[in-house]
Amino acid sequence: MKIGIADTTFSRIDLGKIAIDELRKISSIPYERYTVPGIKDLPVAAKKLIEERNCDLVITLGWVGATQKDLASYVVLSMGLVLVQILTNKHIIDVTIHEDEAESENELLKIAENRVREHVRNAVDLLVNPKRLQKLAGTGQRQGFPDVGPILK
Amino acid sequence: MKIGIADTTFSRIDLGKIAIDELRKISSIPYERYTVPGIKDLPVAAKKLIEERNCDLVITLGWVGATQKDLASYVVLSMGLVLVQILTNKHIIDVTIHEDEAESENELLKIAENRVREHVRNAVDLLVNPKRLQKLAGTGQRQGFPDVGPILK
Amino acid sequence: MKIGIADTTFSRIDLGKIAIDELRKISSIPYERYTVPGIKDLPVAAKKLIEERNCDLVITLGWVGATQKDLASYVVLSMGLVLVQILTNKHIIDVTIHEDEAESENELLKIAENRVREHVRNAVDLLVNPKRLQKLAGTGQRQGFPDVGPILK
Amino acid sequence: MKIGIADTTFSRIDLGKIAIDELRKISSIPYERYTVPGIKDLPVAAKKLIEERNCDLVITLGWVGATQKDLASYVVLSMGLVLVQILTNKHIIDVTIHEDEAESENELLKIAENRVREHVRNAVDLLVNPKRLQKLAGTGQRQGFPDVGPILK
Amino acid sequence: MKIGIADTTFSRIDLGKIAIDELRKISSIPYERYTVPGIKDLPVAAKKLIEERNCDLVITLGWVGATQKDLASYVVLSMGLVLVQILTNKHIIDVTIHEDEAESENELLKIAENRVREHVRNAVDLLVNPKRLQKLAGTGQRQGFPDVGPILK
Repeated sequence: MKIGIADTTFSRIDLGKIAIDELRKISSIPYERYTVPGIKDLPVAAKKLIEERNCDLVITLGWVGATQKDLASYVVLSMGLVLVQILTNKHIIDVTIHEDEAESENELLKIAENRVREHVRNAVDLLVNPKRLQKLAGTGQRQGFPDVGPILK
Repeated sequence: MKIGIADTTFSRIDLGKIAIDELRKISSIPYERYTVPGIKDLPVAAKKLIEERNCDLVITLGWVGATQKDLASYVVLSMGLVLVQILTNKHIIDVTIHEDEAESENELLKIAENRVREHVRNAVDLLVNPKRLQKLAGTGQRQGFPDVGPILK
Repeated sequence: MKIGIADTTFSRIDLGKIAIDELRKISSIPYERYTVPGIKDLPVAAKKLIEERNCDLVITLGWVGATQKDLASYVVLSMGLVLVQILTNKHIIDVTIHEDEAESENELLKIAENRVREHVRNAVDLLVNPKRLQKLAGTGQRQGFPDVGPILK
Repeated sequence: MKIGIADTTFSRIDLGKIAIDELRKISSIPYERYTVPGIKDLPVAAKKLIEERNCDLVITLGWVGATQKDLASYVVLSMGLVLVQILTNKHIIDVTIHEDEAESENELLKIAENRVREHVRNAVDLLVNPKRLQKLAGTGQRQGFPDVGPILK
Repeated sequence: MKIGIADTTFSRIDLGKIAIDELRKISSIPYERYTVPGIKDLPVAAKKLIEERNCDLVITLGWVGATQKDLASYVVLSMGLVLVQILTNKHIIDVTIHEDEAESENELLKIAENRVREHVRNAVDLLVNPKRLQKLAGTGQRQGFPDVGPILK
C-alpha cells in the first residue's frame, strides 16, 4: 500500500511537508511525493502517481488565488481530479487552500495546517478504516475550520 | 440486484440513514453504503460501488454550501456523476441538499427527508418498475418540495 | 431503424406524448420511450436507449427551471449529451423547455408543442432525409418560435 | 485527403456555401458537407465526418445568440469539439459567429464572410502547408476583423 | 527525449521563439514546434506532438483576450489540456498570456518573456530534474511576475 502526495511550487505554504508529517504520525504507509509548478499540473501528477508509481490513493495539495481566473482554474483542477479518479477507480483527496478564505497570512497558515492534517486522516481512513468515516456520516465535518456539527431534530 | 448508497461526513444530516430507512420500507433490495468526506469524492465512490461491489444503481447524497465556490463544486460533482453513468450504463440518482434552499435548519431537515425518500422511490422504480415513472411523465414531480403538477391546456 | 424518446417526471408538460404524436404523423419509424426523474438522468437514459435498446437516434425532452442552479444543471445535461453522441456516433436531439422563456403557462405550452414537433421532424430528417436539412442551411430556422430567416445581402 | 464542412439550419447566413466557395478557390481537396439543426449537434457531426466519411479535418460553422444560455451552449460546443479532436487526433477548425459582435446585419455578413474564408485557408494550411502558419506565429492574426499585428519591442 | 512547443498565429508576441531560445540556453533536448491558429487548436496539437511526433512533454503558448467569451475559451483550453495529459500520462506546461494582465504593451512583453522562460525551465526540470521542483515546493513561485515567496510562521 502506498499514498501519493502531489504539491506545487506556486503554494505559499509547504503543504507537502505538513502532509508527510501527519502521515508519519498516524500511519506507517509509505508515500511518494511529486512536486509540480501549479494546480493545473496536479491531475496528471496524480495519474502518474497511481499508474507509474503504484499509489493506491493520492492527496493533492493546491493553492488558489482570489480572481475569477483562479476560480476557473480551480474548476478545471477539480474536474481533472474527478476524471482521474473515475478512470483509475482510486480516491484522490483534493486539499485546496484559497488565498481569499482568511484575512491574514497567520490565519491562512492555521487553516492550511488544520485542513491538510484532517484530510490526511480522511485519506488513511478511506484506505484502511472506512468504518470510521461511516460513523461520521452526516455529522457536519469541516477541514480547516471547526466542524459545524449535525442538524438535530 | 443491489443498490449503492454514497454519502458524506460533510453533510449536516445523516442522509444515508434516511435513504436506508426508506429503502427498507419499500423494497427488499440489498444495499451497500459508502461514506466519503465530501461531494467531490462521490463520483469515484459511485463508480467503485458499481464496478467493485456490483451495485446496479447508486444513490448519491450530497450537501452543498451557499457560496459561488460551492456551486462550482456542485457542477463538478454533477458532471462527474454523469460521466460515471455514461461509462457504466447504470443510473446514479443524485440527491443534493443546498444549504441555501431553506431559511431554518428545521425546514432544511424536512426538505432533506422528503427529497431523500422520494428519490429512493425513484431509484427503486428505475430498477424494478419503470412503467410507474412513465405514468408520471410530464406531471411536474418535485422532490423536497410539493409537486407543482402539470400545465393543462 | 428505431428512435428513442427520453423524457422526465419533472417536466410540467407531457413532452413525450407530443413527440410520439408527431413521430406517428410523419413516419412509421418505431420508437422506445424511457422516462426518468429529471434532466441529469437523461444522458445515461440516451446511452442505454442507443446501446441496450438499439436506437439509432434519441430525442431527449428536458424541462429546466429559472435559477442559476438550473442553468448549471442544463450545462451538465448538454455536456453529457454531447459526450454520449461522441462515444456512440449517434445523434441526440436535445429539446429543452426553459420555464423562464414565456410569461404565461399558456405561452409555454405553445412553445413546447411547437419546439417538440419541429425537432421530431429534424430528427427524422437526420435519419432518413439529410438533404432537406442541407437545403435549410443558413436559413435561420428556430424551434418553438417563428423562424428568423436568413440575413440577405 | 478530404475536408468535412459541418453547418447548421439555425445560422442566419449560409456559411457552408461561403466555405465551399473559398475551398474551391484555393485548393482541389474534396469535401463533404453535413448540415445539422444547431451548434450542439456539431460535435457528433464532426466525429461522423472523420470516422464514417474519412475526413482528415473538419470545419464547423456555428451561429450563437446573445444570451447567457447561448454562451453556455457555446462552451459546450467548444468543449465537445476539443474532445472529438483529442479522440481522433484530427483538427477541427471551429468558426463561430456571435450575433452580438456586430451592430448591423450588414456588418455581421462582412465579419462572417471574412472569418469563414480566413479559417478555410487556415484549415488547408494545417493539412498541406503547416510552414505558412509557423511563419505567422505571434503576428496577431484575426479572423473576421483586421489583424491586430505583433507587439514589437 | 523531445519537447513539443505549440503556439498560435493569434498571439501578438512570438512566444515560440522565446521558448526555443530559452530551451537552447539551458538544455540540449531536441524540440518540435507546431503552430496553430488559436488556443482552442492547442489541445489536439499537444496530443499530436505527443503521439505522432514522440514528444515527452509539451509546452503550449496561448494568448487570451479580455472578454467573457475569451475567459470561456480559456477554460475550454485548460480542460482540453488536462484531458490530453490524463490520456497520455505526459505533462503539458500551459503558458498563457492574458491581454488584460498588463496596462501597456511594453509591460505585457516583459511578463510574456519572463513567464515563457520560467516555464521552459519548469518543463525541463519536470523531465530531467524533478528534485529541483521539490526543493521549491511551497515557496510561492510565480511566472511572469516576481515570486511572492513563502508564508513563514
